[in-house]
Amino acid sequence: MGSVSSDHPGIIELYGALACGEIAAFYRLADEARLAPHLHGRIAMARMAGSEMRHYELLHTAIRDLGREPIEVMKPYVEVLDAYHQSTLPSTWPEALVKAYIGDAIAADFYLEIASAFPDDVANVVRGVLAETHHSEFVKDEVRSIVERDKKEADRLRLWARRLFGEALTQAQHVLGQRDELTELLLTASGDLNHIATLFESMQGKNDDRMKTLGLE
Amino acid sequence: MGSVSSDHPGIIELYGALACGEIAAFYRLADEARLAPHLHGRIAMARMAGSEMRHYELLHTAIRDLGREPIEVMKPYVEVLDAYHQSTLPSTWPEALVKAYIGDAIAADFYLEIASAFPDDVANVVRGVLAETHHSEFVKDEVRSIVERDKKEADRLRLWARRLFGEALTQAQHVLGQRDELTELLLTASGDLNHIATLFESMQGKNDDRMKTLGLE
Repeated sequence: MGSVSSDHPGIIELYGALACGEIAAFYRLADEARLAPHLHGRIAMARMAGSEMRHYELLHTAIRDLGREPIEVMKPYVEVLDAYHQSTLPSTWPEALVKAYIGDAIAADFYLEIASAFPDDVANVVRGVLAETHHSEFVKDEVRSIVERDKKEADRLRLWARRLFGEALTQAQHVLGQRDELTELLLTASGDLNHIATLFESMQGKNDDRMKTLGLE
Repeated sequence: MGSVSSDHPGIIELYGALACGEIAAFYRLADEARLAPHLHGRIAMARMAGSEMRHYELLHTAIRDLGREPIEVMKPYVEVLDAYHQSTLPSTWPEALVKAYIGDAIAADFYLEIASAFPDDVANVVRGVLAETHHSEFVKDEVRSIVERDKKEADRLRLWARRLFGEALTQAQHVLGQRDELTELLLTASGDLNHIATLFESMQGKNDDRMKTLGLE
């Protein structure tokens, strides 16, 4: 793993990308909660969205501390996150749950893998922002109970989860193609191309673990 | 002003009503943010919704501390809050902003007026939950700038704000007609019927102040 200096111009880009991701996740959860068949589901999705906004506030402060305006730093990432959302619109409540549990985690896995290469203050922000929240317990229980009683639905959700992983990688590539400073940051943090291969394997492994947790192995 | 004992059965009802109000406000803000013409507006609405969820977490804990399940306590209030929302759907971004600023505040004024009659721990929860957040500064600035450059829009928004106040009172009456223990709590807290008249005058006064702040006097 490499080592990133405190004044790397990609750091502010990273904060912008993460902040935009939190806002996008917030609206996605609020929007997809409309598929919830019961009040319990609506409350759980709202609480998850509330966690995203707590994370957003951390990033908002971190961006301001670097003397920049959050909105300006976030703008370049709006389109790609919208594209991810549009390409993975769930049409059922179980799909929305799987997306809430697996979708965000993919990016989180990636950033957490490379966090130790960042200066301490940046690593702390990244870890604080991407920590899993206890609210996702609800999602686990709900998906497991659906999957256990309906084998066909389990098959559908397995394909759906794989598609989410694929779409996340596609959109990530778009970002990396467009944002030089962020890409340079991530390459420096990863160390070298060999390490990147290991990193992707590790992400794939964590994604598999998560699918197992949902009963989708 | 009266005095409410710690074991009044209306206290849990009050928490349920407030918790349901936070969830309803969360979804309303997320939903109405789609009227925002710019990213700045979408971020501001998401941050306000995030504040509602921080308040929800306080109530969630307070309800659990009384040995009850939040969802059960909230259920009776879902319908009336949906009704308020459905009867006050904004059709423009300025209407959404005025609703975000004025709508929630009406109920908050009422509860804060009577909070001193509650036992200390209950009063603390109520005050913590209903405190105004700094995010509404954005709403103030945005509405004032619209109102200053468009007199016709200002007239429309003035009528809209009055309608919000009227609808809030109508829905409050529905709640009071249906939930005996909550009604008893609020009457005990208010002291007597004379005091209720004073209380409504004070609420009207605060609503007028808020309209003035928005440039809608």
